[in-house]
Amino acid sequence: MNEYPSKVLQEAVEAISSLPGVGSRTALRLALHLLRQPAENVHHFATAIDDLATKVHYCKECNMIADEDICGICSDNRRDHGIICVVESVRDVMSIEATGQYHGVYHVLGGIISPINGIGPGDLSIDRLVERLQKAEVPTEVILALSGDVEGETTSFYLYRKISGLAARISTLARGLGFGDDLEYADALTLGRSIVNRQIFKPQ
Amino acid sequence: MNEYPSKVLQEAVEAISSLPGVGSRTALRLALHLLRQPAENVHHFATAIDDLATKVHYCKECNMIADEDICGICSDNRRDHGIICVVESVRDVMSIEATGQYHGVYHVLGGIISPINGIGPGDLSIDRLVERLQKAEVPTEVILALSGDVEGETTSFYLYRKISGLAARISTLARGLGFGDDLEYADALTLGRSIVNRQIFKPQ
Repeated sequence: MNEYPSKVLQEAVEAISSLPGVGSRTALRLALHLLRQPAENVHHFATAIDDLATKVHYCKECNMIADEDICGICSDNRRDHGIICVVESVRDVMSIEATGQYHGVYHVLGGIISPINGIGPGDLSIDRLVERLQKAEVPTEVILALSGDVEGETTSFYLYRKISGLAARISTLARGLGFGDDLEYADALTLGRSIVNRQIFKPQ
Repeated sequence: MNEYPSKVLQEAVEAISSLPGVGSRTALRLALHLLRQPAENVHHFATAIDDLATKVHYCKECNMIADEDICGICSDNRRDHGIICVVESVRDVMSIEATGQYHGVYHVLGGIISPINGIGPGDLSIDRLVERLQKAEVPTEVILALSGDVEGETTSFYLYRKISGLAARISTLARGLGFGDDLEYADALTLGRSIVNRQIFKPQ
């Protein structure tokens, strides 16, 4: 007898354990859980996953996932279309949206330049960003909101050279101590940058 | 704007986070991972899950999941059909099979008597076990391999009364110190039982 009593179960376990961070024991536990659910629940679950492959659109403007050809942010007239925040991924858009502090629009690169992982500028939606800036009707500020590691910095630098004639202003996220951070535990690089980029003190 | 940029993504996240032990952050991470995969992989994944609802059979003999009407164990003539090991779930069968020490057949109850969770004897495949024993062509040993907690003991006791005239022998799993266990750290109940149920020492 095989390790699994059923080929169907085996295939479900193998599919689930292909997810990142899910081992085969957890996958078995989840598959057996699903097996105990009513058939319509399992079907609903499978359909929701399948829809990811078939029903998700990518915004023609900013490359964000959406249910239509243009995403909810790009089609929103109350947002400032004169500021484009360039991010690596869908999740970054969700993180920034969750702050409630940004009212411009986005551009999702779909990755970051990483020679180690074989990702070059051609794999990202950089040409589309250039096009967008060329067509822009208002002077546009571009915020490079990429991560602070080597790959993020490389990508920011590449983008800077690519769009410097096209954007009215190119900015990047403020870096420094986090709110509530203790000086004692800050790393030297962050602390050093916080001093160099110090800001005028404005008591509120 | 909604918290999720896409209704399709939201539904996938909600479906994934309905799994036990999966929170909404993990569900989002997994959904975004699936989103980055080729469509055919996602489709394969969804199909493997959906098959759990539509293609899994339950063995007419022992109630184990199977791909046919009779499972691989019940249809195997090399197994001893004169010993039936009664277990709570599919996973228990897999655990016992993994030991390689058991060559009889099984009976999967599909749960355990638990008044707190509203599970009574009628919800388990107990009648089917009784029927199986009544029809048995050979004197049959029944091993009650249920867990050692109150619910397991209750179910074992209920089964014992139900089948005591029908089985040639009714046994239960040996309980005692685990192999490699240290006496110092054993709980008093287990240690006490190990002494009461002590076995003849057989040097090998």
